[in-house]
Amino acid sequence: MQNVTNPDAGTPRPDGLRGPLEHERRAQIVAAANQHFRAHGYGRTSVADLARAIGFSTAYIYKFFDSKRAIGEATCASSLARTDCKLWDIARSDRSAEARLGAIYKAMVDEIKAMCFAERQLLDIVRVAVDEKWSAVETHIDQVLAIIRLIVVDGREAGEFERKTPLDETCQAIFQTMIPFFYPALVESELDTVDESAGMVARLVLRSLAP
Amino acid sequence: MQNVTNPDAGTPRPDGLRGPLEHERRAQIVAAANQHFRAHGYGRTSVADLARAIGFSTAYIYKFFDSKRAIGEATCASSLARTDCKLWDIARSDRSAEARLGAIYKAMVDEIKAMCFAERQLLDIVRVAVDEKWSAVETHIDQVLAIIRLIVVDGREAGEFERKTPLDETCQAIFQTMIPFFYPALVESELDTVDESAGMVARLVLRSLAP
Repeated sequence: MQNVTNPDAGTPRPDGLRGPLEHERRAQIVAAANQHFRAHGYGRTSVADLARAIGFSTAYIYKFFDSKRAIGEATCASSLARTDCKLWDIARSDRSAEARLGAIYKAMVDEIKAMCFAERQLLDIVRVAVDEKWSAVETHIDQVLAIIRLIVVDGREAGEFERKTPLDETCQAIFQTMIPFFYPALVESELDTVDESAGMVARLVLRSLAP
Repeated sequence: MQNVTNPDAGTPRPDGLRGPLEHERRAQIVAAANQHFRAHGYGRTSVADLARAIGFSTAYIYKFFDSKRAIGEATCASSLARTDCKLWDIARSDRSAEARLGAIYKAMVDEIKAMCFAERQLLDIVRVAVDEKWSAVETHIDQVLAIIRLIVVDGREAGEFERKTPLDETCQAIFQTMIPFFYPALVESELDTVDESAGMVARLVLRSLAP
C-alpha cells in the first residue's frame, strides 16, 4: 500500500479520511472508485491505477483518503448502505411483523446472490471487508440488528410474537440465524440451496416467536 | 503437489487411496501425518517432508495415498470422526431431548474453540477442507444431520417437541442455525462471544420446537 503524505491533507482523522468531509470531490472519487473496483476488482487495483482511471493525480486522491483501504471502505459502505435501505423499506412497510421478518431473510439472500452473479468484484470487496472487520461491516451489522429489533417490537406490540424472552436475547439470536445468509463465502458455496435454507430458517424463527 | 506414480500402487481408487485398505501401514501414516501437520501445518508440509519425518520413502507413501490432499483428507476425517463420536455420545445419552440438543450446540463450539487454542494447525486443515468441500466434511455434515434427527425424533416421541412441521424441514433448519458455530472462520472471528451466541440460538431453536 502506498503511503504518500500531502502537506495540504491536514491532521489524519481516525477513520482514514482526509480534508473537508463535504468536499464534493470526495463523492466523485468514491463513485469512480466504485466503478473501477467493479470492473477490475479491489485486490488488483492500486491507488495509482485508480488515479489514472479517474483522471486525478495520486496526490490529489490522498487529500481525501489516506489509503486504498479507506477508499475501499467508502465504496463498501455505500454498497452496504444501499442494501440497508432495502431492508429498512421492508421493516417499515405496513405488512405484519411475521411477513416482514420472512421478507428480510429473502432480501438478504437476494442481495448477496445478486453480487455473486452480477457484481462479482463487489463481492470481493465485501469479502475482504468481512474478513478484516471494516467499520462499514460493523455499521451494516448494527443496522441489521436495529431492523430486527423494530420488527420484533412491532410484533410483540401487535400480539403476533411472544414477550417472555428478553428482547435483546431474541434479537441477537435472530441475527445469528441470519449469518449463513449474508456471510459471502457461505452464500457462495450454497448458491443452489440458499433460498430454500433461508425460508426454512425464517419459518423456524417465526415458530420460536409464536406467543 | 507432487505426482510420483508407483508401479506397485495398483489401480487408483476414486477416493485417492491406494493399495490394500486394511494395511496397518496406512493407519501408521495417517497417525504420523496427523502429528506432523499439527506441528508444522498442512499448507507448509510436502509429501517429501512427511516421508522424511516418518522415516518412509516418498514412493512408499504413494503406495497408500496418491496425493498430499488424500493424506490430509484421511487425517481430517479422523479428527472430524473424533468430534462426531463426542456428539453421538451426547445424542445417545439418557437426558431429555431438550438437554441433548442444547448440549450439541455447546459441544460444537467447544470442539472448534479447542482447535483454535490448542490445535491451531489442525484448524488450518479443517479450513482448507471446508473451502474445498472435502468428502470428510460432507461426511461430518451427514453425521451432524443424523444426530439432529435422532434427537428431534426422540423429542417428538416423548412429547417434548411439536410434530406439525415436516421432520426433514425441522432438522435441516436446525442444522442451518448451527453453521455459525462450526464454520471455522466464523468461530475464530467471534471467539469471545461464540459461547453466549450458541446458547441464545439453542434456546431460540428449543422455543421453536415447543409443542
